[in-house]
Amino acid sequence: MPTRHPCSIGILVSGRGSNMLAILRAVEAGRVGGARVAVVLSDRPGARALKVAERRGVPAVWVDPKGAASREDYDKKLAAALEAAGVSPGKGLVLLAGFMRLLSPWFVKRFGGRLMNVHPSLLPSFPGLDAQRQALEHGVKVAGCTVHFVVPEVDAGPIVAQAAVRVEPTDTEETLAARILAQEHRIYPLAVKLFVEGRLKIEGRRVVIDRR
Amino acid sequence: MPTRHPCSIGILVSGRGSNMLAILRAVEAGRVGGARVAVVLSDRPGARALKVAERRGVPAVWVDPKGAASREDYDKKLAAALEAAGVSPGKGLVLLAGFMRLLSPWFVKRFGGRLMNVHPSLLPSFPGLDAQRQALEHGVKVAGCTVHFVVPEVDAGPIVAQAAVRVEPTDTEETLAARILAQEHRIYPLAVKLFVEGRLKIEGRRVVIDRR
Repeated sequence: MPTRHPCSIGILVSGRGSNMLAILRAVEAGRVGGARVAVVLSDRPGARALKVAERRGVPAVWVDPKGAASREDYDKKLAAALEAAGVSPGKGLVLLAGFMRLLSPWFVKRFGGRLMNVHPSLLPSFPGLDAQRQALEHGVKVAGCTVHFVVPEVDAGPIVAQAAVRVEPTDTEETLAARILAQEHRIYPLAVKLFVEGRLKIEGRRVVIDRR
Repeated sequence: MPTRHPCSIGILVSGRGSNMLAILRAVEAGRVGGARVAVVLSDRPGARALKVAERRGVPAVWVDPKGAASREDYDKKLAAALEAAGVSPGKGLVLLAGFMRLLSPWFVKRFGGRLMNVHPSLLPSFPGLDAQRQALEHGVKVAGCTVHFVVPEVDAGPIVAQAAVRVEPTDTEETLAARILAQEHRIYPLAVKLFVEGRLKIEGRRVVIDRR
């Protein structure tokens, strides 16, 4: 029997959760090794992603930011909800999928090396908000997206995967974002698969991929 | 008869001139409209590019930096050599192809909008020297190259064309540079063709391409 790497995944969302859905589908289709999505957490009660997850039988929980005394205090609630669902700092995986809150250094450290994000630019170009608009305003002819491990600095962690797309002369922010999003849906599940299979090694700020 | 846009091109080099050769070949093959390469200038007497140009019948001149009182003074010699060869600020085109000297604001202004460079990264990532090494050290999975108009700030001008390449796990600086260079040889002549055909319009920091 082949070695299994069972891995419980927690996904943090704030909106529609299209990257969450791409990952759920990949897991359901058996394209992500021995992984299961254990829980989806949102900081917004109305996030459509919560409904989408529930409909697919995945526990989906709103973690209310109100009442949290600080960013770290809120993040401890997140961590507790993750760990209650079996996503432990020692062997789980936490995925940001359109999660719009900054995470505290405490949380990033706790899940360090087991915390990924996808960003709609070819980092290090255009970190931060509105990356697609930044790209259009800068006039680049090639844009793209990046899956990276999360470090305390925004959009600066070791890069797992990237994909490039052409910028067309007629592009608006919306058409470019849609073209990039299609690539996010492709490379994010791929990055998760590589992680779950134990094929990613962080060396300094580089991610070495075991190609087998 | 179709309208012609005759255009005299000057190319500035310091080394082997592989991008220069790609442009010469494209011009010779009739792939760059009504352009001709009028002169190749080098700041280094031994630049292999000078020999390569001469062998193809293109006037090739070493412009000695010694004796120039300042950067601008040297650049006036360059401008004089260009203009003597018919590359005028009003209708010529000046191409940097591995030219290792910084140009003065005077020169950039004089040939503004008619001065292009190719850089071995997907700008705005990794401007400056050793872009390929910067890319490897940063751990990007997609690298590339950029043809841009030159402005006084280094590698910051409006972008005409870009191409992406994959970074392979086994890449060294040399193998990555070679893969990028192959794309430079493809997009630089293409950018020159678009310019010569009058299809590039600079709007702020964006280059709008008339796709016809």
